[in-house]
Amino acid sequence: MVWNRRHILSLADFTTDEYDAVLQTAASFQEVLNRRMKKVPTLQGQVVANLFFEASTRTRNSFELAAKRLSADTLNFAPGTSSLTKGETILDTAKTYLAMGTDMMVIRHQQAGVPMAIAQEMDRLGAKVSVLNAGDGQHEHPSQALLDLFTICTVLEPKSPHLELLAGKKIAIVGDILHSRVARSNIWSLTAIGAELHLAGPPTLLPLLFAECGNGRPGKLFLHWEVTPALQDADFVMTLRLQKERMGQNLLPSLREYHQLFGITRDRLKLCKPDVKILHPGPVNRGVEISSDLMDDPQLSLISQQVTSGVAVRMALLYLMGGGKVNP
Amino acid sequence: MVWNRRHILSLADFTTDEYDAVLQTAASFQEVLNRRMKKVPTLQGQVVANLFFEASTRTRNSFELAAKRLSADTLNFAPGTSSLTKGETILDTAKTYLAMGTDMMVIRHQQAGVPMAIAQEMDRLGAKVSVLNAGDGQHEHPSQALLDLFTICTVLEPKSPHLELLAGKKIAIVGDILHSRVARSNIWSLTAIGAELHLAGPPTLLPLLFAECGNGRPGKLFLHWEVTPALQDADFVMTLRLQKERMGQNLLPSLREYHQLFGITRDRLKLCKPDVKILHPGPVNRGVEISSDLMDDPQLSLISQQVTSGVAVRMALLYLMGGGKVNP
Amino acid sequence: MVWNRRHILSLADFTTDEYDAVLQTAASFQEVLNRRMKKVPTLQGQVVANLFFEASTRTRNSFELAAKRLSADTLNFAPGTSSLTKGETILDTAKTYLAMGTDMMVIRHQQAGVPMAIAQEMDRLGAKVSVLNAGDGQHEHPSQALLDLFTICTVLEPKSPHLELLAGKKIAIVGDILHSRVARSNIWSLTAIGAELHLAGPPTLLPLLFAECGNGRPGKLFLHWEVTPALQDADFVMTLRLQKERMGQNLLPSLREYHQLFGITRDRLKLCKPDVKILHPGPVNRGVEISSDLMDDPQLSLISQQVTSGVAVRMALLYLMGGGKVNP
Repeated sequence: MVWNRRHILSLADFTTDEYDAVLQTAASFQEVLNRRMKKVPTLQGQVVANLFFEASTRTRNSFELAAKRLSADTLNFAPGTSSLTKGETILDTAKTYLAMGTDMMVIRHQQAGVPMAIAQEMDRLGAKVSVLNAGDGQHEHPSQALLDLFTICTVLEPKSPHLELLAGKKIAIVGDILHSRVARSNIWSLTAIGAELHLAGPPTLLPLLFAECGNGRPGKLFLHWEVTPALQDADFVMTLRLQKERMGQNLLPSLREYHQLFGITRDRLKLCKPDVKILHPGPVNRGVEISSDLMDDPQLSLISQQVTSGVAVRMALLYLMGGGKVNP
Repeated sequence: MVWNRRHILSLADFTTDEYDAVLQTAASFQEVLNRRMKKVPTLQGQVVANLFFEASTRTRNSFELAAKRLSADTLNFAPGTSSLTKGETILDTAKTYLAMGTDMMVIRHQQAGVPMAIAQEMDRLGAKVSVLNAGDGQHEHPSQALLDLFTICTVLEPKSPHLELLAGKKIAIVGDILHSRVARSNIWSLTAIGAELHLAGPPTLLPLLFAECGNGRPGKLFLHWEVTPALQDADFVMTLRLQKERMGQNLLPSLREYHQLFGITRDRLKLCKPDVKILHPGPVNRGVEISSDLMDDPQLSLISQQVTSGVAVRMALLYLMGGGKVNP
Repeated sequence: MVWNRRHILSLADFTTDEYDAVLQTAASFQEVLNRRMKKVPTLQGQVVANLFFEASTRTRNSFELAAKRLSADTLNFAPGTSSLTKGETILDTAKTYLAMGTDMMVIRHQQAGVPMAIAQEMDRLGAKVSVLNAGDGQHEHPSQALLDLFTICTVLEPKSPHLELLAGKKIAIVGDILHSRVARSNIWSLTAIGAELHLAGPPTLLPLLFAECGNGRPGKLFLHWEVTPALQDADFVMTLRLQKERMGQNLLPSLREYHQLFGITRDRLKLCKPDVKILHPGPVNRGVEISSDLMDDPQLSLISQQVTSGVAVRMALLYLMGGGKVNP
């Protein structure tokens, strides 16, 4: 398989070949990261610009480390001190980074569609730069869903993660689906691969419209306004961060009530398969979306493994966008 | 020619030999930047400290990339979180970076004269560090004027940019001359080289005092309080950023009126030479100092090329200050 | 001697062998820093995360440069834009950096004990990461005291700094002892090595409890509520930064009165040994804790040398924690 996608903006149209290419390539880089010498010279002399218009430390550092381990040079954009405050448009900012010699742009923005708009402008200009969506509003966060996928597959078969492992697995995503770009990207990837996906959340945070995301895709998609049916016999449970700012919007009565109804607790996990595993994109509100002790239980929680997978998967994405061969 | 200038603080006393050295050296680095492997080991082990007391992303990233492409290590100074807020003087901050082992300091400050004060203190201490003024108040911004010069010369003769190309060329600088450090540095460089330089702006933003900058210099300098005579048969038009904060100072009636009187539009460009080119130091207020569509017209606008030249010119400056030979 | 300490959190239980190991190793790196090529490949592929929960430019840059000169990759944490503001606990933030593949964490926090809490959590998890305390509340700042020690020893014998040089030397620490983590770490190191240590400050800033720090340690410890007896025949005088925010807490009448009573002036220095030297951890309030002119007198002030030593000592600490041999 040859990687042909210049930009990684959404998983809505990712093919199984592409998911597979990411898995295989990430597995190779995961091996590199287990060596003492964790760097490869692949992107030496290339420039990766991290344009995080929305502030972030965790994801930005993950991309920065991925880039450095590929020997790329990195540029960081600090929104507070930038030309944006001087009236420059976002497209002009991106064009400035292009003109400086940026080879890849990793873009996060609070508004959906900004990475795509930048990618389209780059294409219109005939630029060879690649754009990666590192989270745009409530739209998508492809690298997060890809690292979730890689994490799940490596749990199922550490030596050789592959897509077929997910066939027939039941995966629950619990929480604020409505506002979650992580959920949206995971819905695309997991339904494409043929998992059985169950979304659960209060009606205000899980509109029925989401059912349509499953139309015409290999996997099955179910919606639940209570948590029990989603957890029943689940192989994996993904909880989502509950953003406290939602409280003021009358979408939730209280954090305490949310935890009562949808929080993942040890008791509730008894509904799941005996070897169920929990994922969370982080940062976690302990005691809200998940009981504090579950998060720390290495038998249950994949949270640290997700972060570790994140570096390998992002190395894979930068590498593939940079013209690297699948599974080097 | 041997480069003898330790600090680059102002273009007021730059010699034509020095302008030429920068052009030739930048041209060499521009070639490096067109290769796949864009790094050279010139400054390996050297430390470039970017001391941006005035916040900036664009210029700081340009210098940072230039330093990294020369294989230097970079240190970044974040004014908000620094010792300055703890009562340390600016000179003491600079001495701390010197003591840490900094080889070159790239300094931006909202007050004119700070880079020079630091350079003088470094000299007084017998330190071998080089200081580069990356913009000080309304005083100067030498690297911007040098990249403008390099951009213009490479447009005129891409293979072999040289100063003689500018002889007799008419260049207009339009806008808020009074507050522009970019304009001041460009006035020094372009009058030194023998261009015919026309400044245009409203009387509040273009005091007659500027006429004296041309005294005793090879180039001719003209001032205009309207835009037409400046554009007439111009070969190059530089527009300047109109800082919105000027509005509150009764210097301008409104942005709209400014655009009406001094904005660069397609109609006005008909006054210029048929192959006129437009420059702007960025960031641009689209529709204020320049019509939005002109900025995007690759036949007219050199804005992206200026940003690209910026990296090559800044590599050249760091390289020359670091003891490199002209035109390596 | 073999270095066995995984974390560097406090100097309270440092052994003389360990102090000696740091001195010898820092001396080797100081030599490296005097070469033109100031980098060594020791930590290539390793990741040093600078987690400065309390903002700092000076110390962060010193650690960053030390890491880069050892060829490590560095990650920087920006507290303002981090997951902390989203409700993540500090331990979870540290675990995220661990999971990303961090090899060493350099931690500064406004609360005492945070680096130790993180180190304990890392040990509990069986992680091989090293934690270095870069200043925690009013508790300790070990790398500062170690660079002070290295600075003093290299002044006494530049070619071969060693601990015995300090035997019988009189060292005064003057100022706000109560709130100073720098003072606490220096008290541990200097009393361990056998110096004669005199603390001086106003009673509100020097509680009698400090006398107990000398119990059972080789060096002698004296407390003074006036400056004269501390300076009498002193070989070295360390002044401490007076934090202006103390003014509002009724601990000091005024900065002026503080300077009158405890400020280090040329007159007061006449009490000391003729070749007395002054240290200050920076940033300095000129004219408060020390007269401005003394600070700039190269015969008296070791302030710049402390900053320079800082890079060598921090290289030594990262190197030793990373498994390097003493005195490479």
